[in-house]
Amino acid sequence: MTQDFFERHRALLEDAVRATETRAYWSSYPESPSPRNYGDTANEQGRQAFDALREGDFPMDIAGAGRMASHERSPYGLALQIRYPHLSADALVAASSRALAQWRRAGPRAWVGVSLEILSRLNRASFEIAHAVQHTTGQGFMMAFQAGGPHAQDRGLEAVAYAWREMSRIPERVLWEKPQGKQDPLRMEKRFTIVPRGVALVIGCSTFPTWNGYPGLFASLATGNTVIVKPHPTAILPLAITVRIARDVLQEAGFDPDVVLLAAHAPAEQTGQTLATHPDVRIVDFTGSKTNGEWLERHAAQAQVYTEKSGVNPVVLDSVEDLKAAARNLAFSLALYSGQMCTAPQNIYVPRAGIPTAQGKASFDDVAAAIADALHALTADEAKAAELLGAIQSEATLARLDAASALGLPVLAQSRPLAHPQFPDARIRTPLLLRADADHPDIQREWFGPIAIVVQVASTDQAIALARDGAREHGALTWSAYTTDPDVARRAQEAAEDAGVSLSLNLTRGVFVNQSAAFSDFHGTGANPAANASLCDSAFVANRFRVVQTRWHA
Amino acid sequence: MTQDFFERHRALLEDAVRATETRAYWSSYPESPSPRNYGDTANEQGRQAFDALREGDFPMDIAGAGRMASHERSPYGLALQIRYPHLSADALVAASSRALAQWRRAGPRAWVGVSLEILSRLNRASFEIAHAVQHTTGQGFMMAFQAGGPHAQDRGLEAVAYAWREMSRIPERVLWEKPQGKQDPLRMEKRFTIVPRGVALVIGCSTFPTWNGYPGLFASLATGNTVIVKPHPTAILPLAITVRIARDVLQEAGFDPDVVLLAAHAPAEQTGQTLATHPDVRIVDFTGSKTNGEWLERHAAQAQVYTEKSGVNPVVLDSVEDLKAAARNLAFSLALYSGQMCTAPQNIYVPRAGIPTAQGKASFDDVAAAIADALHALTADEAKAAELLGAIQSEATLARLDAASALGLPVLAQSRPLAHPQFPDARIRTPLLLRADADHPDIQREWFGPIAIVVQVASTDQAIALARDGAREHGALTWSAYTTDPDVARRAQEAAEDAGVSLSLNLTRGVFVNQSAAFSDFHGTGANPAANASLCDSAFVANRFRVVQTRWHA
Repeated sequence: MTQDFFERHRALLEDAVRATETRAYWSSYPESPSPRNYGDTANEQGRQAFDALREGDFPMDIAGAGRMASHERSPYGLALQIRYPHLSADALVAASSRALAQWRRAGPRAWVGVSLEILSRLNRASFEIAHAVQHTTGQGFMMAFQAGGPHAQDRGLEAVAYAWREMSRIPERVLWEKPQGKQDPLRMEKRFTIVPRGVALVIGCSTFPTWNGYPGLFASLATGNTVIVKPHPTAILPLAITVRIARDVLQEAGFDPDVVLLAAHAPAEQTGQTLATHPDVRIVDFTGSKTNGEWLERHAAQAQVYTEKSGVNPVVLDSVEDLKAAARNLAFSLALYSGQMCTAPQNIYVPRAGIPTAQGKASFDDVAAAIADALHALTADEAKAAELLGAIQSEATLARLDAASALGLPVLAQSRPLAHPQFPDARIRTPLLLRADADHPDIQREWFGPIAIVVQVASTDQAIALARDGAREHGALTWSAYTTDPDVARRAQEAAEDAGVSLSLNLTRGVFVNQSAAFSDFHGTGANPAANASLCDSAFVANRFRVVQTRWHA
Repeated sequence: MTQDFFERHRALLEDAVRATETRAYWSSYPESPSPRNYGDTANEQGRQAFDALREGDFPMDIAGAGRMASHERSPYGLALQIRYPHLSADALVAASSRALAQWRRAGPRAWVGVSLEILSRLNRASFEIAHAVQHTTGQGFMMAFQAGGPHAQDRGLEAVAYAWREMSRIPERVLWEKPQGKQDPLRMEKRFTIVPRGVALVIGCSTFPTWNGYPGLFASLATGNTVIVKPHPTAILPLAITVRIARDVLQEAGFDPDVVLLAAHAPAEQTGQTLATHPDVRIVDFTGSKTNGEWLERHAAQAQVYTEKSGVNPVVLDSVEDLKAAARNLAFSLALYSGQMCTAPQNIYVPRAGIPTAQGKASFDDVAAAIADALHALTADEAKAAELLGAIQSEATLARLDAASALGLPVLAQSRPLAHPQFPDARIRTPLLLRADADHPDIQREWFGPIAIVVQVASTDQAIALARDGAREHGALTWSAYTTDPDVARRAQEAAEDAGVSLSLNLTRGVFVNQSAAFSDFHGTGANPAANASLCDSAFVANRFRVVQTRWHA
């Protein structure tokens, strides 16, 4: 290795490991795009770097690669027309396997050092990545910067910290000395070598390509595996920039850049399935739909498969101090990136008889109206709303919005198009808020996008039961509950633990149920159908490497 | 809990956790059956306890259970005729699920405390268990005592230590405080609850029911899961005693004894498959054949599946200081429990041109003869040999011995029956040692039992390549190599790491390749087809529980 990246970042690594254990607030990469954090020119340079990538060949050389025209379309209407390097699945696995031969022997310090240097450079490229995230996912710029840049980098660092934590607990060598009574002891020397599983695959999603992609990428890389990054065909650019930076660092460190490869492909190619079931692919990290995730869990039997799929996230309203504050918080969660977050609430359960508040009883209709009013207030200023809502990533989500409207359910808040102050062709819609009864057949399925349903239930107990059973059957990544009654809080917590869903209680201020903070919040539990793993915990890293020992008489 | 078992065993637990990190010699339970360790009456009491179990109803009450006559036959000819409680797979899962409701909320201290108390009482029952192990598996008494008793208990303790190590790193509560510039910080309280996956299943094997069964049993139990223990139908008794003791401890501690259940069944019942694919079974630990293990990996998709299967364990002979010492060590490994260990060597690769020794060149035939001679010397004293060889556990292994004899390969050492000084009907055979060429089609399959093959190869390089490729394709749990050349040692080590097999170098003294010491040796790597997990590491425990968090504004 030309430079000792491990020593350069050792203090940061130790802080990160400590943070995984305290789980108090900690972050490595500043979330504010302020020039104080990133310098006066970073913003403009990032924009220019992004513009330079449009309508051209993406700057990445992979031996034997052709070029493919990307199907990426900015949800804001901007032309992208980028041509990425393109290889067959077999060629990708072959190149990754070749790179593995050297990388696997480099050892934990090199794997971790290179990973940390990549993260450091990704941080410096946060503005370029932010524009790339905005114009593939449709996120507003600030979210694209924060979630796509520093927050994603924090999640990557978290995975590296867990990997180091597990690997560093295995001694490299030991003298084993077993007493034999009056005879000499048996003495063996033992050497423990950490070996990777092999070639790893990361399958990216269309909405949070970096935030959801980095944990698997860095967990695999930091444990000595080589990684093929397969972006969603409509959100290639953020991961292509990531792979470019990773390859630069690898090359500088004297490794084959093919340790990290990009598998860009057109929507019609089944690249993900072909790669995931390739006999030499030993790890798969996936974020995406339930259907595709379950397919992988069943068919990629030769690999360790980590999936984050989707679910139906419930809200239980039992009682509140301040209905307006609760409604504002909830409306923000529904509006943020137009509900295109796997953590966004969908079904808001409200008892038929209404709920107690500090200002007296609020009827069911009062509660529904309060949420609808809060949504209207949030979207009244079109320019501000456009930043909060972002744009709709895919045509499928627009179609889903139409399908939800066509259900014939009473409409509490209508979805309407908004104009973007800068991008006239941006696909922006305000959230649709419907009302349904608890037994309506269409509410226990996922309505991904700006669609939420206020569900009338007989009682809080029914609400908790529906939330629990829905999570068990369909999965849930979040569960929000509002109650002033400690006994209801306890029952909600027990039900959430039974169903394996994290619970947020009485959120009214500047924290929202869809937010998940690296180093503190476990994202996904791995205990319900929404995800088979959690970001990030020991289980997410511990099986990406194995230990092979050699022993001999001392 | 009526007694705080956790506090009682806390010092032991802390020592055990430290031992997992140093991996130096450490053991909790004395391996010598000496009265100094176990008291003057333990041996006799254990024998009497065992005798009292024969020809009767096994003392265990499970609600709703009928009785089944066991098919266990002692390989020493002793009548067993024990009747065990019997329930259907559905009834077992239902009872386990009922017990789970309370157990899952007891928390890590209770789970670990109960586990440690069970281990402590298993240790006290080591003689009773030893007789049970001897008369189901066929092991000699000393091995049955050591491997079936204290060594198995050490492996169980190791799993509990790993479980505690992982669980105790997750804080129960934390205050999360995120700075907001000049504004007040965002402050959240968070509570992290460890939740088990649910009902776990342990599928025992016929040769090491406790040693191979305890890691999974205790890893699942210590992480809050309930456990159904399904012994091999020919080796029920050791695990039945184990389950009886576990249930006693659970009941004393105020838990439903059905937290640990016994699934005794007749050979014709497909109880293992039915249980393993039951939708409510979330964890499966399996030791047994490759066929059954691979079936589980493929079909028990609803569960985490940990398998130890089988393989073809190679020995590479390149050069030795002292051929006789090497041959003695190897012969002991072949004779120990008649090769009925998943770690016993099978294929001994020797270069056609012979090998250098300190006494000059030894030809291929010299090497083969040295091993055969060492086998003869080991088995010359019939009484001593009977203790070392043990008895043949199953008719299938006897049949395999006949099949190996019928291959038509040159015989280096003939297998012959031996008489046991105490049990005239004991099924005892000395090892069969064959000779084959490297391209013989029958050598790259498992010949489980007292069967080994000296394989003539062109060179050490071919030997290493055959060992590596065989391990990759068929699996291997151990790899032994003899060389005085550091470069060959390095190449063997690299090949073993590529193939994911642990390597023992130049064993000539009182350590044998088939032995694996808890807290130091990783048993299995999980990196080749012989096993998908290792005993014991973080990966073996970290995914048996999940974390569910609750957060609220502080």
